[in-house]
Amino acid sequence: MTAALYAGRYSLNTLVLEKMAPGGQIILSPAIENFPGFPGGISTQELIERFKKQIDDLGINIEIAEVQELATNLKSTPRLRLRVMVSEVEPIRTPIYNIRTNDGSYETKSIIIATGAQAKRLGVEGEDKFIGRGVSYCATCDGPLFRNKDVLVIGGGDRAVEEAIFLSSYAKSVYLVHRRAELRASKILVEKAKLIPKINFILESIVEEIQGQDKVEQVLLKNVKTNSKSKISCQGVFISVGIKPNTVFLKNFLEMDEKGFIITDQEMKTSGEGVFACGDCRKKSLYQVITACGEAAVAAASSHKYLLSQ
Amino acid sequence: MTAALYAGRYSLNTLVLEKMAPGGQIILSPAIENFPGFPGGISTQELIERFKKQIDDLGINIEIAEVQELATNLKSTPRLRLRVMVSEVEPIRTPIYNIRTNDGSYETKSIIIATGAQAKRLGVEGEDKFIGRGVSYCATCDGPLFRNKDVLVIGGGDRAVEEAIFLSSYAKSVYLVHRRAELRASKILVEKAKLIPKINFILESIVEEIQGQDKVEQVLLKNVKTNSKSKISCQGVFISVGIKPNTVFLKNFLEMDEKGFIITDQEMKTSGEGVFACGDCRKKSLYQVITACGEAAVAAASSHKYLLSQ
Repeated sequence: MTAALYAGRYSLNTLVLEKMAPGGQIILSPAIENFPGFPGGISTQELIERFKKQIDDLGINIEIAEVQELATNLKSTPRLRLRVMVSEVEPIRTPIYNIRTNDGSYETKSIIIATGAQAKRLGVEGEDKFIGRGVSYCATCDGPLFRNKDVLVIGGGDRAVEEAIFLSSYAKSVYLVHRRAELRASKILVEKAKLIPKINFILESIVEEIQGQDKVEQVLLKNVKTNSKSKISCQGVFISVGIKPNTVFLKNFLEMDEKGFIITDQEMKTSGEGVFACGDCRKKSLYQVITACGEAAVAAASSHKYLLSQ
Repeated sequence: MTAALYAGRYSLNTLVLEKMAPGGQIILSPAIENFPGFPGGISTQELIERFKKQIDDLGINIEIAEVQELATNLKSTPRLRLRVMVSEVEPIRTPIYNIRTNDGSYETKSIIIATGAQAKRLGVEGEDKFIGRGVSYCATCDGPLFRNKDVLVIGGGDRAVEEAIFLSSYAKSVYLVHRRAELRASKILVEKAKLIPKINFILESIVEEIQGQDKVEQVLLKNVKTNSKSKISCQGVFISVGIKPNTVFLKNFLEMDEKGFIITDQEMKTSGEGVFACGDCRKKSLYQVITACGEAAVAAASSHKYLLSQ
């Protein structure tokens, strides 16, 4: 929506294609405390409505449609050869993209990909039921809501250990559950976590079920070596087993890393001419609402600059 | 302030050193319309107060002091050699930075530079002489002094057009002078300005001299296409030709471009170990509040990661 806000203010003819409902992943958190400008935090629903109002005020449409495929109509010879061979004879042709959705198709000269990502689910009983009611996929976002509570972090990578350390400054106790005997995270992080008495390591164990009435109350664990089961009472379960970018429809179309995150430069340019990306679908170091917004403004400015140069 | 917000939430021991008053350059604009989350816009003063409240709530101090010099105490052999020669014998030493202000000094392992930028001088005769006597770099601050006067705005970017629009509610007439045939500003702003009869566009022209006795009385213009000269009678000259980063105190300390903007990678890492930069002091493609905030979050996360790895 920030990309649309900026594109609209640049007077670009702008359309937002949205698969479900504006807002994306942040809907999974009840509130956000670390978006600058909202002391005391703001409910994610209200923040989304405020974003939406800003682009409504500019007259920008949000079309509910799922993009299924992108294609370019620049069929003839590859652009690079065109550029080299005939650039002095005729103007360089720029691609027109065809965007096919489940509900029709669109043509455009420039695209901003802001499809986000989704947290990888653990796939256990109770997980879906308690999202936003104790189950979270983002300690940075929701950790401070668990002050003096007992929380569990599931995962063994850098992110999981970072989240455990982060949570230890809020929670009463933190359990880090990982299915293997060793954590995948860097040693230095693990050592740091081990120095924090609040953090308890539960290795070679998996979560079998998340239980509770209206909110998370306990978690059922199984030791994968002994098959013994146990219960841990907790109010928060942070699942940190990775995120998956929503970029499957872009396969073979843009340069991505091995996990499907789109590669861009600092101006949010992708490998596709006139195609920009921002937010959680990008390969980057920090996945937050404020970073997505900043990148979105840059992507819109880069798209504007690209279109002006055509 | 967003860097402090994130650093504080990472539980880093955080201190903000501020030269004058929190907020920086945006104080020069009365309101901001394109910060996501505030439909209808918000006064910059209120936005700054909201940012500040968020870090106050975290207990982070803002110390009013001007940083004059940074130095590192890693005096012995250069770090690279240390790393190669003795890394297996003893732990690698990391720099401790000494920050000298006009009011004392501080030691720290990691620094986030967010010193922003300031208005650039035009560099024409009469400019320095008439500062505060007709020449201004801030329409928001000085505009109301020019009620029913004729004023000139120099520049072609968003900021220049915003200032022309702002000034049109005070001045008798506003001349917007730009050296190119097209304004760089976003179309929506340009269109808005064109609807205001008081605003006159003087394109492909430069100011050669600002003239007057005690105060600005007229400006000497040259059309860069025809080389013809003309004079415009006016009492105010608002210069809006770009920004200069506040990085002089970092000379020989960090890698910068020829204009003094700090070079960083996508993780906001500068050439200095443990030193990060964000906002208008960085070399980048878009200078906006929202981009500064996004970069600030990344800088704090990178600083946190760096400190964890020590």
